[in-house]
Order: sequence, then structure tokens, then C-alpha cells
Amino acid sequence: MNIFSQRIELVRSMLRAKDWDAIVITGSDPHGSEYQASRWHQIEWVSGYSGEGDLVITLDSAGLWTDSRYFIQAGRQLPGTGIDLHKMWVPDQVLIPQWLAEQFEGYDDAVVAVDGLSQSASSVLDIVKAFGGKVTIVNAPDFMNAFWKDRPAVPAAPVSVLDVKYAGWSREQKISWLRKWLGEKGFDAILLTALDEIAWMLNVRGSDIAYNPVVMSYLLVSTDDVRWFVRKPSLDAGRQGTEAAFDEVQESGIIIDDYSDVGLALSDLMNDDYFGKLYVDISSLNYDLYNVLKDSGQSSKVMSGKSPVALRKAVKNEVEIECMREAHLEDGLAMERFLYWLDKMMESGDTVSEYAASEKLHEFRSAIPGFRGESFETISAYEANAALPHYVTPSESSAEMFSEGLYLCDSGGQYLYGTTDITRTVPLGSCTALEREDYTLVLKAHIDLAMAVFPYGTAGCQIDALAREPLWQSLRNFGHGTGHGVGFYLNVHEGPQDIRQNFNSQPLLPGMITSDEPGIYREGQFGIRHENLLLTVDAGTNEFGHWLRFEPLTLCHFDTSVILKDLMDKAEIDWLNEYNAGVFTVLSSHLPREIAHWLRDKTKPI
Amino acid sequence: MNIFSQRIELVRSMLRAKDWDAIVITGSDPHGSEYQASRWHQIEWVSGYSGEGDLVITLDSAGLWTDSRYFIQAGRQLPGTGIDLHKMWVPDQVLIPQWLAEQFEGYDDAVVAVDGLSQSASSVLDIVKAFGGKVTIVNAPDFMNAFWKDRPAVPAAPVSVLDVKYAGWSREQKISWLRKWLGEKGFDAILLTALDEIAWMLNVRGSDIAYNPVVMSYLLVSTDDVRWFVRKPSLDAGRQGTEAAFDEVQESGIIIDDYSDVGLALSDLMNDDYFGKLYVDISSLNYDLYNVLKDSGQSSKVMSGKSPVALRKAVKNEVEIECMREAHLEDGLAMERFLYWLDKMMESGDTVSEYAASEKLHEFRSAIPGFRGESFETISAYEANAALPHYVTPSESSAEMFSEGLYLCDSGGQYLYGTTDITRTVPLGSCTALEREDYTLVLKAHIDLAMAVFPYGTAGCQIDALAREPLWQSLRNFGHGTGHGVGFYLNVHEGPQDIRQNFNSQPLLPGMITSDEPGIYREGQFGIRHENLLLTVDAGTNEFGHWLRFEPLTLCHFDTSVILKDLMDKAEIDWLNEYNAGVFTVLSSHLPREIAHWLRDKTKPI
Repeated sequence: MNIFSQRIELVRSMLRAKDWDAIVITGSDPHGSEYQASRWHQIEWVSGYSGEGDLVITLDSAGLWTDSRYFIQAGRQLPGTGIDLHKMWVPDQVLIPQWLAEQFEGYDDAVVAVDGLSQSASSVLDIVKAFGGKVTIVNAPDFMNAFWKDRPAVPAAPVSVLDVKYAGWSREQKISWLRKWLGEKGFDAILLTALDEIAWMLNVRGSDIAYNPVVMSYLLVSTDDVRWFVRKPSLDAGRQGTEAAFDEVQESGIIIDDYSDVGLALSDLMNDDYFGKLYVDISSLNYDLYNVLKDSGQSSKVMSGKSPVALRKAVKNEVEIECMREAHLEDGLAMERFLYWLDKMMESGDTVSEYAASEKLHEFRSAIPGFRGESFETISAYEANAALPHYVTPSESSAEMFSEGLYLCDSGGQYLYGTTDITRTVPLGSCTALEREDYTLVLKAHIDLAMAVFPYGTAGCQIDALAREPLWQSLRNFGHGTGHGVGFYLNVHEGPQDIRQNFNSQPLLPGMITSDEPGIYREGQFGIRHENLLLTVDAGTNEFGHWLRFEPLTLCHFDTSVILKDLMDKAEIDWLNEYNAGVFTVLSSHLPREIAHWLRDKTKPI
Repeated sequence: MNIFSQRIELVRSMLRAKDWDAIVITGSDPHGSEYQASRWHQIEWVSGYSGEGDLVITLDSAGLWTDSRYFIQAGRQLPGTGIDLHKMWVPDQVLIPQWLAEQFEGYDDAVVAVDGLSQSASSVLDIVKAFGGKVTIVNAPDFMNAFWKDRPAVPAAPVSVLDVKYAGWSREQKISWLRKWLGEKGFDAILLTALDEIAWMLNVRGSDIAYNPVVMSYLLVSTDDVRWFVRKPSLDAGRQGTEAAFDEVQESGIIIDDYSDVGLALSDLMNDDYFGKLYVDISSLNYDLYNVLKDSGQSSKVMSGKSPVALRKAVKNEVEIECMREAHLEDGLAMERFLYWLDKMMESGDTVSEYAASEKLHEFRSAIPGFRGESFETISAYEANAALPHYVTPSESSAEMFSEGLYLCDSGGQYLYGTTDITRTVPLGSCTALEREDYTLVLKAHIDLAMAVFPYGTAGCQIDALAREPLWQSLRNFGHGTGHGVGFYLNVHEGPQDIRQNFNSQPLLPGMITSDEPGIYREGQFGIRHENLLLTVDAGTNEFGHWLRFEPLTLCHFDTSVILKDLMDKAEIDWLNEYNAGVFTVLSSHLPREIAHWLRDKTKPI
């Protein structure tokens, strides 16, 4: 019995004491964030599993639900805990609501407990639906506190203001745009709960969540006032020294209330006879706040729908686009310095550990003015480790790399003037025939999507197959999306657009920035992924319609040494040669002479 | 004022007399058929417009809603009628429900009349929804009878039985399969209203609708009995001589009731205290029958959902697949004889009218044993006429063709042993550079889809872009779907699968037959479409999943004389050469010596 199976027994003792039949522990925070502050690393605390997922514990079983990105990791971390892995997005998947309903089929009085703060209303309602309504849901906010004694507090890290010379739009412009939207739709207020939307609206940045420069808060924008629910410097030592940022926000006419007062404020609003309609996304709202709205007995005042901020934020303005180009220039220079360093290390016969490589890359990025940290934890993975798409490089005893096989590095930076996300898979020396074939096929896949031209109105899922077909032709595939939206000095993953198989009707619009990152992963052997960020741009209008295409923002060469040229067609080869030549042209004058020479060699046409 | 604007005034006089504000005239029949017997050519009678669409008439305006396939045709046929064209599936489209709601905004008592027999319940409910419920719907079945004096009767053409040696499954097998499905789902009966599903279930074929070998009827399959609601030979002179077919159906234990009794039977079922659940697709059910179910006050006994027959019918069994191969062999021979004849006519300097060409093709098909007529009206279109994707070749004064430019022929046959659908665009002599470029790009588009390999579970909309991207690359596109399902000696268009931009989650499954027909249309110049039918087949399983691919069923060469080879990549050229060589190999031994020689020349590799 390891420590995690003991912790699961602790949870079960609570089930028995409270007469609950099951408890759902999500990997989520009160804002539905994709990544969470350590306070919400509750699944890792209970189970030792550190990937994404949701956990369900009953008296006689326990299960983790996650998708194919984490199957290998879960397979390594779950044994000994007594937790079964339930695979998501596979044929015949059984999701949590259905699984729970099956466990308690025939019961008339099943009780399922949830932490309403860390679970969305929609996920709870799905459970109720699966039971056909015959279930009692107990909302137990922060129930983990009972056994997780040293659980971290709600974070309250320093806050800074993002200058309008980077943001493009001032917070007054943004608020006035949102109020115009409220007016057009006939709503009187909107509650924003997504942290990146709030940071974008207020032109503030923080570090409450690692890699995501957001501030834990809620924003209530009404026709009358704007109220920001957030831990103030006066209340939280962590925020000391950043009073000026809060002052600047207040000077824009924004009322600052305490983070914990949002429920009360919503309740007051619902009970205000003169208040009209509140707009909120019920599906992403946490179940705790959902109950506040529901318990007010004024549900008719609530209209649910997607936040308009997500789309507005995803379509970058001209200032943001220019800044993003600058960020990619700086980031590309750091990447090329890093790849040069790695090449020389390999040439000299030295070995380099995966972790040392990621530290070196960090060193190059840290030298850039405006660098504010990585945009996510660098995946620095050699050979078989790269077969785990979300491999976490251990700081101790990471694999030693030498001049053979493939090294995958997926990393990105947060800059005052943008966010980057790049993956390069680098041949460190000789590669096997299969490695070379897969390397070339993934590059074809990347290029075919990057070259795409498509009519205005096309959604990512309608062009995802362009990246996959070069792999499908030889019966290969990858189990993750091809592309995700990227924020502006904000979350490296953002919506509403994406490029993946799942139906998502959001069209790709000019100004959106989306990744292009196909891969092939062979468990126990190697993993390959090639990733650039693509800006959607206008490609003109003719009698057949209005056309869009992509323009790569990322500036870093693709290694051509192991390409099997016969597998690529002329258009793909032309694209590759032109891209690499462009990288050299833009970057070389900013690089030391010996690196520029090396880069010229690396970017020679094939 | 032409005859059509006079007829519209007749409809308006009814609006005034009845105090209706608007009337919807659909292009549909009581079964939601895509093509209708002449009795339901009501829009053509009123407006002169003979394409697909729906018409709305109010006291002061009239509008036709249709999609891009018919924009040019509507543009030719509507002028002078006072009817506005409303384009569907374009950005910012306003569909009928929304348009009606906008016309009568502010009214509390708008009255919209519909012919409940020729309109689906869902389309009426969409109107109610658009008005926020504030509308009165009047169900006026067959209201057209009031002014359309010589309106044709409900058709009752001869009926025959399809031998199990073609159908693969006997009607007893099919009924027992459907009853098993009812049992598994917990339903007690299912009402089938789609005519092709009924014909498939009962292994009967008719000719109540031109080109679609179906029988106007309803089928009610319950755990107790099977009731077919249809005009019997004893009641309808049109059916005389086909009593044996009805006897055979009855011998399988099926009760035959009159077509007009279905409403009564449903009403009785609803009011039977011992009856459990009826399964029916409310969205495709006509509004008249919907009202029967609703007025029974027993709505809780009705479960709505897609009919399982559509999917079962779309996945062809082994016997059907073998028969389809035979149909495509015979049809391919007729096509090659036709193309040879056309080639010789052009060579000799003769002109041929579009209509004469379609008649000649009919002659070749008619010589095939088992041929039962075309599967749709042949589109025989020269140059600019081919820019109308659904051009109807006039029998009088159709265009004369001579040895220059492109001729498009889209046609198909119904055979006792299958259904075909093929489009060839044939260069009759020299072509312009633009014609050659478009010809080649459309062929690339066709081939790229035909070559596709994809994982099990992939839907058509997820691979549609494979056919479009070769056109999108040079900012060209086509305004119709890329592929539709094809029935077995049944409707040439069937679901549930398709290959088009619209989200349709139905995966392409082994045994499904789907068309692959991209095109380019240049109004006033020319039109190009290349179409084969593709069978989805298994392509094996490996560590990356379970794979599918396509196998062309159509056997007729693609003309290579005007191809711009530089625009095609090696894989595309290889596919084309292999396809053409295969056509020669399979067909040549069945063709007269001189046609076989000509075909060998036509199928030489490029």
C-alpha cells in the first residue's frame, strides 16, 4: 500500500462518514483554467498522477479519466494506487457521468459529492442527466482541506499593468466595446470567470498560475459599473509592491472588491428588483456560483452563452500582431543560439542531459529584454521519452543525449510583447530509416497545413485532415489536436478556434494565431513533432469567394539533414526552402558571425 | 404580368379570403422525398421555377429560398414573377423562419399557413420558434387543389419484388433485424416514412417518383405486426398487373392497408392503453401526421430519433456490393460506347445536340439486361450550360456541340442489380488554357479524395477539404457537396453519410457507397465535374488504429488529352494511370474490337 492508496482510503473514510457513494475530484480550479495553481493539484496529491484528468472515488473502486496524451504517463504513475485508467476520446469511451450511473444502477438514492469550486456546472449537470435525475449531488467546496493539511492557499502573486503600446486597446476601449455588446444584445451585465479574458479586459498580468500570466479574479461588467473581485495588496502580502497597478486599474473607474465577495455580489444583483439580465457562460461557471444564481430564485434573469471576450481576444489587433512578430524574432534568435550550442556539444562528443538542455534554452531566453518566463514547462525529451507528448523533464537524472537519434524540444516564452510556442525535433546524429521516414512525413503534415488556402468561414476541424492525410497515407497518426489558439502575453492555449478532429464551428479568422503541430509517437522508440505558430491572414477575394491563408510567425529553421526528399512533393520542398531561407534572412544579422555561418549552412535549400 | 405572377395573385386571394398573413409552399412531398412526383411540383406550377427550394408568399412579397446549385437557374426563371431569390448557405443567410419573423415583427397575431402534408414538422416548429411562439400556424393540407385544377393524383405505379439474389437480405431477415433493434431499445413500434427505407425493408420497387424506384407508402413495424399503408391494385388501376408482388409481400406476413389510413392507424395506436412506445423521426415526419400524434394527447408514448434503417441500408451487404460491381461494369461499357460514338461524331465534323447525346447514352444503357431507367435526369451540357451544376437539357433546341471545348455529362442508371452515377467532362477538341487548368485541378481534387486513407470513425466533413484544397490553392471552389451516398437500385442520393463541408457526424463505414464529384463552374463559360462512386473498404489495423480507404466502383476512363501534367504530383499521376489501365483491362474484352482499340489509346499512361 503506497502513500497514494492510503490517501484514497482517507477520501473513502470521508465517503463513509458522510454517507456519500462517490466523490468526483477534478483537475480544475474555480475558473475552469486549463492549468491550475498548486492549490488545485488535488489529483496529484491524492493519486500521484500529475497529468490532466478527473478522478472518481467510490467505496470499492477508483478511476482516472484522461485522453491519449496522458495514457503512457498514467500507465507509469497509477500502478499501486488501485486507480483504473479510463481512456477518453477512444471508441466506446464511457465518460464519468455514464460510468457513475452504471455503478449505481438500480439505486434510488445515490449520493455523489463534488467540490463545487473546482467543477463546472455543466459537468455536474451531465452527471444528474446520466442518472435521469435520480441522484443527490452534494456540493462540498474545498473538501480536500479536511485531509490535505498543507494545501497551498489561493495564490495572490504580484500584478502588473500591460502598457497599451503592447496591448493595442486600452482597458477603457475594451470596457466600452463590451458595454456596446451588452447593449446590442439587451443584457445589463456580464460575469467573466475565465482568467485570461479578465487579464485581457483589464490589461493586467500576474503570475497566480505558473506559465499563465493571469490574476485569480472575477470581473462583473454592467452598464453601471465594473467590479473586479481580486485579492488586494492591502489584504494579501503577496501583492505588496504592486499597489500602483491596482491604482491604475481603479483610475480607469473600476471598483476593486475582494475575491471572496463575488458570490455575495451576484446574489445581491439577482435580488435587485431594478436589475435586468445577467449574461454568463453557465457551462464553464463553477457549480458553486451556479448554485448562487440558482438559489436566488431569479434564474429568469440569467442568460447563458459563450463569452464574447474569447473571440475578441483571439482576433489579435494590429499592435498585438506587430508585437508578436517581435516576440518571434527574439524567440527565434534564442532558439537558434540554443540549437547551435547543442550542435557544437554533440560535435565535440559531449553528452548533454535533457534537463541541462532545457536550462540552456532558458538561459538564452532569459537574456531577452521583456522575457517574463516560459509559456509552459519545456518538454526536453530524447528518443523514447519524446514518445510521451506531454513528457515532463525531471530536474534530476534526466536522460543523457549523445550524437545519435532524435531530440524533441517543445517550449515557448512569455514576453511583455507576446507569447511563443515552438517545437523542433532535432537529429543529433545518425537516425534510423524509420526515424527519417517519420521525420519527413511529420514535416509534410506540418507544411501541408501551413500552405493551406481556405474560404472565409472555414473552421479548423474542416482542414485538420490536411495535416493528417500525409500520415494517414502510410497508416500513421497522432492522438492530439493539430493546433490550438495562442494568447498575447497570456495563456499559450486559448480558444475559441482550434485545428483538430473534434467538431468546433468557430471559423479561423484573420488575426487569429494558431499552432500547427502534427507528430508521430512510437512508444519505447522516439517521438517527432514539428510546430510553428501560424497567423491567419487575408488572401483576397474573387468570384469564388473570400480567401484566407496562414503566415508562419515562428522563426527557426527546420533541420533538413535527415529528410527523405523523395517523400516530399515539389510544393512542399519549395515551401521548406523558402521558409528556411526566410529564417536566415531575418535572423542572421542579429546573430554572432559563427552562428550566422552555421545557420546559412543549416538553411541551404534541399 | 406573366402567368406565374397571376398564379401568385391567386394564392394571395386565398390569403385575403382566409385572413392568412403568409403561406409556405415547399418543394417537398408527404415523405420528405428529395425528388417528388409531379403532384408535388407545386412551386413550379406557381412560379415556373423548376429547381429545388421553398417558396413563401405574403400579401406584399414573395421569396424563393434555394442554394448555390440553383442560383443561376433561379436567376433565369424568376424574373417577371415578382419573386425574390433568397440565397441559402451563404454568409449572413436569412432562412424562412427568421425572415417570416422579421416580416411580422411587432404583430401579435401573425397567421402562417402551411400544407402539413408537404412540410416536415421540424420546419414548421422552426417557424414557431423564430416567432418566439407568437404565431398561429394553420395546417391546410393540399390547399393547392383550390387553384391547381389539373393537379396530378397521388401516384400508384406498378410495383415489383426485388429478388433476394440481388437484395442479399430477405424481407423476413430485415423485419427480424428491425424488431431486434426495437427490442434492444425498448420500443414497441417504429413508423417508417422515408420511401427508400420502406422499399429497402420490403424488397419492393416501384416508379411512383421519376428515377427513384420507390412506392408511395408508410410502414409501421411493431412487435405484433407489420402494416404497409399503400394503394392496392384492387383500389388503383395504375397498379393492375402487379398483384403478384403484393401477394408475395402479404405471404411474408405483412398486412396491407390503404395509404390514406395511416393517420387513423397512428391515432388508434396512440389511444391503445396496452401500447407502449412508438419510435418515429419527428424531424422528418410530415406536419399532418405530427399533428395526429400530438392531438392524441399521448405524446409521451412517442420517442423521436433517426431511423436505424437509413444506416443499415447505407452499409451494403456483400451480395449488394457484388451486384453493384456488375452494374458498374455494364454501365461503364455503355459509357465507353457512348464516348466512342461522340468522339467519332466530332472527328467526322458532325454536330450533336446535347439532347441527342443524352438520347444516345440512353440507347446504350437501354440495351443492358436489367436496366430499369436512368437514376436521375441526365445532365448533358456543353460549354456555358455546364456551368449550371443541375442544368436540365431541353428536349427541343438544346445546344449543338462541335469539336471544341468541354462537354459535361452527369448521368446514371437504375439496374435490377444496382444504381450508378457518373460524371465525365469530355474535351471535344481544343480547349482554352483556363479550361485545361480547371480540368486538371478538378481531376486532382477528385483523385486526392479517391486516394484518401483515414481512421475508422472519420466523417465525410472531416475529409471534404482533401478534395477542395487543390482548388482552394488557386482560389477556386465549388458550391455543392463533394459526395453523397448512393442507394442499391434505389435513390441515387441517400444518407446518412456524405462528404461535404456541413458538419455531419456519421462516419464513413466499410460497405458504404459515396460519390466523389468536385467541380469548377464559370458562369457564361464552362463547367467541369469529375465523378466516380467510391466504396469504403477496410485498409487494415496497426498500432495507430483501424484504417479505411476508398475503392472506385465506376469503370470509365478519364480523358487525359487536356491535362496539364505539371499541375499534378506523382501520386496523382500514378493513380490516374492505374485507374485508366484498370478500366481498359476490365472493359476491353466486353467491347467490340474497334472500341477496345480506341479505349487502349484513350487509357495510355500520361
